[in-house]
Amino acid sequence: MHTTPFLRNVSRATSLTPSAALLERVKRPGYLQKLAKPEDLVPMFKHDDYIGWSGFTGVGYPKTIPTAIADDIESKNLQANPETKKKFNLFVGASVGPEVEDRWAALDMIARRYPHQVGKEVSKGINAGRIEFADKHLSMFPQDLTYGYYSLHKKHGDPKKPLDWAIVEATSINSDGHIIPGASVGASPEILQSAEKIIIEVNTRIPNLEGLHDINSSFLPPHRQPYLITHPSDRIGSTAIPVDPDRVVAIIESDKPDNTGSNAPENDESRAIAKHLIEFLEKEVKEGRLPKSLLPLQSGIGNVANSIIGGLAEGPFDNVQVWTEVLQDTFLRFFDSGKLDFATATSIRFSPDGFDHFYKNWTNYKDRLLLRSQQVANSPEIIRRLGIIAMNTPLEVDIYGHANSTNALGSRMLNGLGGSADFLRNAKISIMHTPSTRPSKNDPTGISCIVPFASHVDQTEHDLDVIVTEQGLADVRGLSPRERAKVIIDKCAHPDYKDLLHSYYDRSLHECLKRGAGHEPHMLRNAFKFHTHFLEHGNMKVKNWD
Amino acid sequence: MHTTPFLRNVSRATSLTPSAALLERVKRPGYLQKLAKPEDLVPMFKHDDYIGWSGFTGVGYPKTIPTAIADDIESKNLQANPETKKKFNLFVGASVGPEVEDRWAALDMIARRYPHQVGKEVSKGINAGRIEFADKHLSMFPQDLTYGYYSLHKKHGDPKKPLDWAIVEATSINSDGHIIPGASVGASPEILQSAEKIIIEVNTRIPNLEGLHDINSSFLPPHRQPYLITHPSDRIGSTAIPVDPDRVVAIIESDKPDNTGSNAPENDESRAIAKHLIEFLEKEVKEGRLPKSLLPLQSGIGNVANSIIGGLAEGPFDNVQVWTEVLQDTFLRFFDSGKLDFATATSIRFSPDGFDHFYKNWTNYKDRLLLRSQQVANSPEIIRRLGIIAMNTPLEVDIYGHANSTNALGSRMLNGLGGSADFLRNAKISIMHTPSTRPSKNDPTGISCIVPFASHVDQTEHDLDVIVTEQGLADVRGLSPRERAKVIIDKCAHPDYKDLLHSYYDRSLHECLKRGAGHEPHMLRNAFKFHTHFLEHGNMKVKNWD
Repeated sequence: MHTTPFLRNVSRATSLTPSAALLERVKRPGYLQKLAKPEDLVPMFKHDDYIGWSGFTGVGYPKTIPTAIADDIESKNLQANPETKKKFNLFVGASVGPEVEDRWAALDMIARRYPHQVGKEVSKGINAGRIEFADKHLSMFPQDLTYGYYSLHKKHGDPKKPLDWAIVEATSINSDGHIIPGASVGASPEILQSAEKIIIEVNTRIPNLEGLHDINSSFLPPHRQPYLITHPSDRIGSTAIPVDPDRVVAIIESDKPDNTGSNAPENDESRAIAKHLIEFLEKEVKEGRLPKSLLPLQSGIGNVANSIIGGLAEGPFDNVQVWTEVLQDTFLRFFDSGKLDFATATSIRFSPDGFDHFYKNWTNYKDRLLLRSQQVANSPEIIRRLGIIAMNTPLEVDIYGHANSTNALGSRMLNGLGGSADFLRNAKISIMHTPSTRPSKNDPTGISCIVPFASHVDQTEHDLDVIVTEQGLADVRGLSPRERAKVIIDKCAHPDYKDLLHSYYDRSLHECLKRGAGHEPHMLRNAFKFHTHFLEHGNMKVKNWD
Repeated sequence: MHTTPFLRNVSRATSLTPSAALLERVKRPGYLQKLAKPEDLVPMFKHDDYIGWSGFTGVGYPKTIPTAIADDIESKNLQANPETKKKFNLFVGASVGPEVEDRWAALDMIARRYPHQVGKEVSKGINAGRIEFADKHLSMFPQDLTYGYYSLHKKHGDPKKPLDWAIVEATSINSDGHIIPGASVGASPEILQSAEKIIIEVNTRIPNLEGLHDINSSFLPPHRQPYLITHPSDRIGSTAIPVDPDRVVAIIESDKPDNTGSNAPENDESRAIAKHLIEFLEKEVKEGRLPKSLLPLQSGIGNVANSIIGGLAEGPFDNVQVWTEVLQDTFLRFFDSGKLDFATATSIRFSPDGFDHFYKNWTNYKDRLLLRSQQVANSPEIIRRLGIIAMNTPLEVDIYGHANSTNALGSRMLNGLGGSADFLRNAKISIMHTPSTRPSKNDPTGISCIVPFASHVDQTEHDLDVIVTEQGLADVRGLSPRERAKVIIDKCAHPDYKDLLHSYYDRSLHECLKRGAGHEPHMLRNAFKFHTHFLEHGNMKVKNWD
């Protein structure tokens, strides 16, 4: 194995001695010669570099190098001077821990960030115009990266590699030099494939999770092959992510934990939503549209998702399968109830307590669980084939069934699209669940989640089957827009907004029929009046539609 | 073979004698005993029946029975009396010939019509509130039909069958009683699978097209299998559509032609758009993001599509493959140029002259062409796997890359979503092409196709890569919304609207940054001002943004 030119530039403490823990985790001796200290690698990162990280929903991300880079910049006050300022283009499967990503944003180190994020400082930077951000279907982000779509305007480095750097966390490395990731896979396979230089952080604090992952090869068209999966437990790949050893610049030993918080707590509202939903699923089974064990479930993040999965753990369905993006704590309860047979996802985002329970009872779970790349976990191909039941939370849904998953009042980015449209667009039953209202600063029901016209559309009327709030459940399958509006308002809207929405619809219908345009009635001059009223008065309770 | 109860009710001229032409086409003798006259079948159709037809883009639809039903209703003036009035729920893969569908609409015979239509009377009925219509991704319509989603509120008939009737055109019937369709497949397999009673119109005027089709079995989850297609020419099925002979109530001989008009003529604008697009594709090849023979193409309907395919017939790419929904006349030119290797679609919508040329030169085409069901032709699975280049025309695109494919001014339905989102959502390169303006009654550039906020969203910002008008081409891959807005306005907007759009963006940015909400800047109070100005003044030339 030759030494790469990059490696030669690393001024390292000569022959670092690997710890016993590291020796046990790294089965490829050549890599141990590349053992480096984070602070020695820091100077290699240049302004405008394109950097990919492992990680998904705050799990499995690199913790040591990003922190060392931030420490260096902060301690030398580099950002104060335009000559020394460094901003990076950062690509990660989804969100990572706030102590690295949010810190980078706070230090104004992020020029560009795709395709999803969670963190106050990151979203502040995006909405202040300092960070260029684009959210993208999580199934498409990794392929678009390999297509070169994110590096069309990259000005330096290897033109054949979209990324200058991949920094990837591993829980171990096998004798081929391939990476066993932590509790997420995300976009790591494609980030590794796309990077000129690779740094591996071997985390010896997290257990070696070998066997938990199913990593398949990812080809570019016209050479792409079918995913031969017809059941959530089907394996189509290997247990490690392939890596070209020649591109591995350095390995680092890390012992920092994933920085996950606790899961969102359930409340009466989330439990009411879950109750409506479970009743609906029971009816579908009774009428023969779903098998008794349901079809594989996808469930989003948040307290409603927790209540639903919690409800299923005590619910009427046995031998349930899960095909989802992320697993939260309540899935442990679902497993432990004996009602969940098998679950697959691209990430496990348990709370610290949840992870403790998980690792302690590892033998109970290890054969009932598989982690895949996000390109596979969120693949339209498999979601449609399996006939997934998809459940996600929007910011708002309009009376015709368009939903906003991303931008408050049309403009302020929260976290990004995530996999919501991957699932809802392709599922057998596409469900959005939301409280009917949210509190504003001056009004406990100041924000209606049912609006005349969604102020940003991520899911279209062609994609949603069921909308459910604590008020009730609207089954809009097979309905025309005019029929949908009545059902959504009647079943889902909060009493404080029901009359307002009905009168919006009635007047819109009247005006549109008059001009022969009554398919999806709107008064465009008033379509966003809920939102503009909120901007002016802090609530959506408009006085009238004049 | 037993006689079905339905058949016994058919008062037929005893033992109709099949024509020689019919005998040659129908290889299953039992069916000939079910030969009937259309007028004898008419009384069997009851008010509120659920009826499925074959047909797609005005090709391969039943012509005789629907006409006989309409004749009966018209001649007896049944619609004048609420007691005798008949309205039907009509389900067809896409649009059919105006002489049947539009006539039904004119006679107010359609209560409900899914998922796509073309015809003045049909859209008039929809927009006047007389016809309940919902447009749906064409890949999803057939599966949602088999799931029972369109018959949740059906009040009579076999509860296990979503449809009371399937009326399907065949060009021949094989010895198993299975159907060889005409020049479209569409949703016929699932319509046949979903119907309690089946009538087959054997069209002896159109050539027997046996061998042109690839019909695969369609399973419901959890039993659905991968589509093992990695090349447009791959066959995964048989040459005929399976039919349960016991459900065949009658066969009819028909000799009516498909009523297709001529294709939309090219003009300077469409040729300018095609030129930009072909230059873009050349650049993609040059920079290694596309192979020299491109990747399989999908192309929509209309004059821009014609110019593009015409341009490719004289263009720089050889051995091109096509994976699309519908083939128009220019594909014949493309075939004849020798540059098109293979094409597959769900329908061939040639003009009458085009069909003459096609049938006359059948041996040139028959091994380079395959028709599939719309569930396969528009399948996200295959579109993504093959890395399709998708090209479609919207009504309008907004400055952030959301597109409206369906509802003029947000409310007036034109034809429906069609397969646009099946392709654009999953393609490797998703392209929308449109003239930058369209004429209004009082202004040759009265309608801008680039708007601040799409008045209806069918394709989201997460789905489009390229927007092209006669003004130029905006490549928005990898750009943030703020970057996209500038490129789309600069490259695509008409000079009459460019300044207006820039000032909308600039003021929106200013206002949104002020409140920390600048990810996708909008002034919601003005977001539809182009549209409301048009409603008041007949053009979109707003005076200011105050």
